[in-house]
Amino acid sequence: MLLRILELVGIATFAASGALVGVTKRLDVFGVCVMGVFTALGGGIVRDVLIGVHPPTSLVSPANLGTAFGVSFVVMFLHSVVTKMRRQILVLDALGMGLFASTGAVVALDHGAGALAASLVGATTAIGGGVLRDILVNEVPLLLQREFYAVPALIAAALVGVVVDLGLPTDIGLVVGTAFAFVLRVVSLWRGWGLPTARVHE
Amino acid sequence: MLLRILELVGIATFAASGALVGVTKRLDVFGVCVMGVFTALGGGIVRDVLIGVHPPTSLVSPANLGTAFGVSFVVMFLHSVVTKMRRQILVLDALGMGLFASTGAVVALDHGAGALAASLVGATTAIGGGVLRDILVNEVPLLLQREFYAVPALIAAALVGVVVDLGLPTDIGLVVGTAFAFVLRVVSLWRGWGLPTARVHE
Amino acid sequence: MLLRILELVGIATFAASGALVGVTKRLDVFGVCVMGVFTALGGGIVRDVLIGVHPPTSLVSPANLGTAFGVSFVVMFLHSVVTKMRRQILVLDALGMGLFASTGAVVALDHGAGALAASLVGATTAIGGGVLRDILVNEVPLLLQREFYAVPALIAAALVGVVVDLGLPTDIGLVVGTAFAFVLRVVSLWRGWGLPTARVHE
Repeated sequence: MLLRILELVGIATFAASGALVGVTKRLDVFGVCVMGVFTALGGGIVRDVLIGVHPPTSLVSPANLGTAFGVSFVVMFLHSVVTKMRRQILVLDALGMGLFASTGAVVALDHGAGALAASLVGATTAIGGGVLRDILVNEVPLLLQREFYAVPALIAAALVGVVVDLGLPTDIGLVVGTAFAFVLRVVSLWRGWGLPTARVHE
Repeated sequence: MLLRILELVGIATFAASGALVGVTKRLDVFGVCVMGVFTALGGGIVRDVLIGVHPPTSLVSPANLGTAFGVSFVVMFLHSVVTKMRRQILVLDALGMGLFASTGAVVALDHGAGALAASLVGATTAIGGGVLRDILVNEVPLLLQREFYAVPALIAAALVGVVVDLGLPTDIGLVVGTAFAFVLRVVSLWRGWGLPTARVHE
Repeated sequence: MLLRILELVGIATFAASGALVGVTKRLDVFGVCVMGVFTALGGGIVRDVLIGVHPPTSLVSPANLGTAFGVSFVVMFLHSVVTKMRRQILVLDALGMGLFASTGAVVALDHGAGALAASLVGATTAIGGGVLRDILVNEVPLLLQREFYAVPALIAAALVGVVVDLGLPTDIGLVVGTAFAFVLRVVSLWRGWGLPTARVHE
């Protein structure tokens, strides 16, 4: 139950981030909603396509769709307020990222994936929506450039695999993975961490 | 039979629109054909990947492939003529959009999707090719920006779901969905309808 | 065995080409590795999604992932050396392209695809990674523009279908397809072949 609520919080946050990008790019109301829905649900859809869940879970869940759509629609009108909540959104987004990476790994394990595939599928679940968002509006995905974002997602999903491999209950994996990714991401934002780029002599 | 002919007309129209974009972007003959084929068949391929039809229907249909490829190839040489037929192409494109949304919804229902998922899969079938086309040539998808295009597609697919839910034959759903989307799109073109964008204070 | 080694050589070459683009675009170390891994494994993942192999083979193969990741990581530091090996990389890349197109067609045939679908799936396997690479960094895919690249891939995959249709062993198809695509591509590079673009009167 708590898990489900957190999941919807994650979806709402991802939708808000996608819708904000849509507003910035001057898309119409439909475009803004598509951006929000894709960002919120895209990672899960890619996950389901990779592991063979047909049709993808998010397309059959009125709650997921309604949350993503509703939040996007509201952001359309309250975008100046939402923009000022940037700090809070980043924290909620870190929570959503950790949660999606962990649940993504669990879903993959449930469908017969090994630990390696589950880690990759979990990380894809967490970052897929943001990558789709950036591709749709014709930007090089932010997280390829300087964000310390995909690494915590990958670690979270891998942790879930390790916990389940140890024979511990899935729920412990979810908590450990989500908490770890969340803390790592928030600390990285707070300390301004980034990853090095190649030294190019020009 | 009529349905099949209309479907090929839709594929031909979508292929022409994709190939024209390829010509405009100065792609080579192969690139132009890829653009045409992707635009024409991309929506159906995404539909099949979402609902689990392997391999996607379009990849095993010589008629679909041949039509898409042949039209693209011809557009390569007759692009100046085709460009002048812009008005007729828009009308045929509206027909193809309505038809793809409706048949997409029917295929999804046939594969066990509920009404909600069928609506989304149907709309994706109709707009997927155009979105892929714009992503390939590095443009923000047109229909996110100002076209009244995806909304009729979504309504058409939802109508199919409603008709089938009422226990009426699938064929009636196809006719109702396609006709509704077609009329709505053509009227929107004629009256210059668009959707509002967010008010941004700069 | 030889096939497996050649496959890893192909993966390594594709990873190097993807990682180099990442370095050029000033991505961070994670972004460079993602570019390398996507370019190397993306075609195979798209192939598996199209024909219904869940989860995709590359996501469960430590050797494939390790090779792609390791090469990308090394390119991050040795990119100036790798850049100078451009000629050798092009030759190895031609080998990888032919091999991926041929093995992709074989995998599709093994999963019940007909000769037509197998040709298209094979070609997609060979060019999918490069297309994903270019989309991720916001470029119009190179091979749509002027490269004589997708045509040999398509011919190689079609040759595999013909050979298998004739009742000959799969291995002969692999050799014939790979060799043909390799030679065609290398000769096209050497002679500077390209495909014509449409004549546009401006």
